Amino acid sequence: MGNKIITISREFGSGGRTVGKLAAEMLGIPCYDQELIAKIAEESGLAEEYVQERGEYMPTSSWIANAFSIRGSGFVVGEDQIWSSQCKVIMELAAKGPCVFVGRCADHILKDEHDLLRVFIHAPMAKRAERIVREYGESDVAVEKRLIDKDKRRKAYYELYTDMEWGVANNYDISMDSSVIGTQKCAEIIVDLYKSDLPVCYHGETK
Amino acid sequence: MGNKIITISREFGSGGRTVGKLAAEMLGIPCYDQELIAKIAEESGLAEEYVQERGEYMPTSSWIANAFSIRGSGFVVGEDQIWSSQCKVIMELAAKGPCVFVGRCADHILKDEHDLLRVFIHAPMAKRAERIVREYGESDVAVEKRLIDKDKRRKAYYELYTDMEWGVANNYDISMDSSVIGTQKCAEIIVDLYKSDLPVCYHGETK
Repeated sequence: MGNKIITISREFGSGGRTVGKLAAEMLGIPCYDQELIAKIAEESGLAEEYVQERGEYMPTSSWIANAFSIRGSGFVVGEDQIWSSQCKVIMELAAKGPCVFVGRCADHILKDEHDLLRVFIHAPMAKRAERIVREYGESDVAVEKRLIDKDKRRKAYYELYTDMEWGVANNYDISMDSSVIGTQKCAEIIVDLYKSDLPVCYHGETK
Repeated sequence: MGNKIITISREFGSGGRTVGKLAAEMLGIPCYDQELIAKIAEESGLAEEYVQERGEYMPTSSWIANAFSIRGSGFVVGEDQIWSSQCKVIMELAAKGPCVFVGRCADHILKDEHDLLRVFIHAPMAKRAERIVREYGESDVAVEKRLIDKDKRRKAYYELYTDMEWGVANNYDISMDSSVIGTQKCAEIIVDLYKSDLPVCYHGETK
């Protein structure tokens, strides 16, 4: 039997990372988020910046055009190399014990091996833009444009690798709007559920 | 300012009605579900059985073919007649005070007037079929077939009248898988959120 693991899928700017970190702190278990990048980079031998961008987002069309134009130069690295490193790193960390994963399709990667509580954190576009402006001081216009682009590419990446539809409630055990419920309360609900006597779940099916 | 209202959208067989009733009981507020049918029937002058079926589901293709073949006989009643009666009844009940609505697009109908906590209750097909067999003693095969049909027609009805996508997490403040979390726990989480100091929400936007 696998470990009891929380996976947080999240819309860009929704505060899903904060929710994951808060829940992990309350439960006294590790939360893997940025740490994953370094580990996947090490495993794959690729640069961290490259893994950060390409391990969760589909490339832009200009990136693809550029990549194709220089194919054969050794620059184009197969997506599958990052994906297989990502799977290996996530499975090794999950095998160590209960933990929280933020993003990187961990819900899909771990579905056969561990008892998952699958969470999706979302928020309306305007609230996510507000949050990014408040926390990182970016301009409204640039943020909205970037959000649309990020949403589109993250959705495409997720759907390519998991064969599941992004953002559909049925893919998760619980989905919450962080702009209404608040990141602290989202984390408290997750912790409460984690500690509750819920049925063990593999594949998103109750066994 | 409107009332604080809980709207429960639910997949057929997910136990969403039970969740709504439990939450309403705990909060000591009314839960409108089957009562709505009688009121809409009274308001529209149509039979309850007809309102029950047509106020939440798109008709089957054979029903449409049949209806078109006898159009002009006075038998075909415009969908809009049920819809406008439904809107009127739901808005009148909502104006009376805090309450819970189960289904019937109440989330959409009330979005401009009241402070909503919008809930979606779902469960995997197999779990919903199990629940229906357990509670109503129907056969597995018949249930799965009926679920697929009900899902398809409820989704089509909702999307036609609300211009929103059915089952997408972003349309709700919280979505829960009742087969994992359990109807009792779902209700407790809703009650806890309802009592919490959440921001007032109109249009699904936080104001």
